[in-house]
Amino acid sequence: MKTANIGAFFQQVVPAVDETLDKILPPEFNVPTKLHEAMRYSVFAGGKRLRPGLCVAGYSAFRSDWECVLPVAASLELVHTYSLIHDDLPAMDDDDFRRGMPSCHRQFGDAIAILAGDALLTLAFETISACDQFSPERVLAALRALAQAAGTQVGMIGGQVLDLEAAGSFIDSDHLDLIHRSKTGALIEASIVLGAQLGGATPDAMRRIRLYGQRIGLAFQIVDDILDETGRARELGKTPGKDRDQSKATYPRLHGIEESRRMVHAIVREAGEIIVELGDGAQLLVEMADYVETRSQ
Amino acid sequence: MKTANIGAFFQQVVPAVDETLDKILPPEFNVPTKLHEAMRYSVFAGGKRLRPGLCVAGYSAFRSDWECVLPVAASLELVHTYSLIHDDLPAMDDDDFRRGMPSCHRQFGDAIAILAGDALLTLAFETISACDQFSPERVLAALRALAQAAGTQVGMIGGQVLDLEAAGSFIDSDHLDLIHRSKTGALIEASIVLGAQLGGATPDAMRRIRLYGQRIGLAFQIVDDILDETGRARELGKTPGKDRDQSKATYPRLHGIEESRRMVHAIVREAGEIIVELGDGAQLLVEMADYVETRSQ
Repeated sequence: MKTANIGAFFQQVVPAVDETLDKILPPEFNVPTKLHEAMRYSVFAGGKRLRPGLCVAGYSAFRSDWECVLPVAASLELVHTYSLIHDDLPAMDDDDFRRGMPSCHRQFGDAIAILAGDALLTLAFETISACDQFSPERVLAALRALAQAAGTQVGMIGGQVLDLEAAGSFIDSDHLDLIHRSKTGALIEASIVLGAQLGGATPDAMRRIRLYGQRIGLAFQIVDDILDETGRARELGKTPGKDRDQSKATYPRLHGIEESRRMVHAIVREAGEIIVELGDGAQLLVEMADYVETRSQ
Repeated sequence: MKTANIGAFFQQVVPAVDETLDKILPPEFNVPTKLHEAMRYSVFAGGKRLRPGLCVAGYSAFRSDWECVLPVAASLELVHTYSLIHDDLPAMDDDDFRRGMPSCHRQFGDAIAILAGDALLTLAFETISACDQFSPERVLAALRALAQAAGTQVGMIGGQVLDLEAAGSFIDSDHLDLIHRSKTGALIEASIVLGAQLGGATPDAMRRIRLYGQRIGLAFQIVDDILDETGRARELGKTPGKDRDQSKATYPRLHGIEESRRMVHAIVREAGEIIVELGDGAQLLVEMADYVETRSQ
């Protein structure tokens, strides 16, 4: 994709991702209807499609036929949505709102919410394993990377456990980094890694892509913490101040708002410097880094 | 595997599967420790390892190096265990005991139980996608078949929803078949299908394998219903009579115990006749069918 303007990029990618999600998700009228309704409710409740965007941008740094990677990009959104549904459950973060709408369990009940999450995760693996537009070796590598990023050891599930365990207790900066790297960072990193790897990035390029992805993931989480603290509910789409109420560890709580903003700026700059070396194709990724920062302003 | 005695078969396969599970599952001392402890608690809480056994038996009908398929066989047990953990949650079947021990959420709390289930499912996909002892094409086909069997349309998750929805209402025999085929049958069928397919079964053999798997899955579920009704808690490993208490649809409730036993006998006989055509290699599968039936006596 040749556009080097992040706004134009998302304007082109988001409808294509949504169309792909619509094709992948079972129709609401298929049995069991309530489950399929809940899956679609949460997937189409809004969301910036950041992870699919990162996947397409990573792919586009190496190949121009970006439509090919859409099923994989959409699958990353399925995995992200599953994690939101389960995190919002009463047994976990107990959040009544998500993306400005009643959370899945508030709308459909706990049982359906648990199963809708399970189903979105399963559907993501099914969708990627059916991708025959790439070599089977590459598809398997993508599946492995996704499963690790979603998993328990410096992966999404592990991060959620650490986050729950940290509630109400003092944790240091290193531990907070581990939580963020696991809970949010791993899937964001995987999004760009999957795109680049399916696009045929060389090992050296993949090294840069990973470093870039790690920084983008961290910056994104700090921005999320800042938004929660500054209470911009509409931007955030969930109950603001909730992290503070639950005495959750956050960057602003540990470092203050201004210092957190400075950290985001430094991390994003570093990400840009790492990725700019990949040449013209990576211009979108450079802009993507800036885009993550502007959310915190 | 040349043994044609089902007892000897399980005596050989179960320890090998357990050893594989022990290797696949993250150690308890890895962070987050409580999550890894919960995953191991539920996986090693007992269980007959029927699905791994069916996978190995399916594979062994076509190839002799059955140890090769152990990671896949073990992954089927991970998926099965994830489904038990989530099904037992208070929001679902609300069962305090499983395999004769406190269920996962009773032992570790709801949050960890939900996440342990998520993690086992994710780990299954990670494990299979790392199998380089088979061709990438076959591994991808196995992943796709597993995801479908675990999914929402005539798959495990869909079956659980239909089962929850059917509680307390009258359903006919066809609908009960659909529930069973989805909730239990699909994964049992997938177990043998994955084994046979990775073992290199021809399309004609696969057709028989599928028909056989469908019948074994159905027979197994009817036997489970019978055991629940006759209240043999030790055999069942969970609270007996629970299905009846919750006015759940079961075969004995619809057809009576004796007629249910006769149905099992007829289905198992049919399964044997289908599979015996594959020749000597399938002798284990013939015995496996009988084994399913003897549980109901």
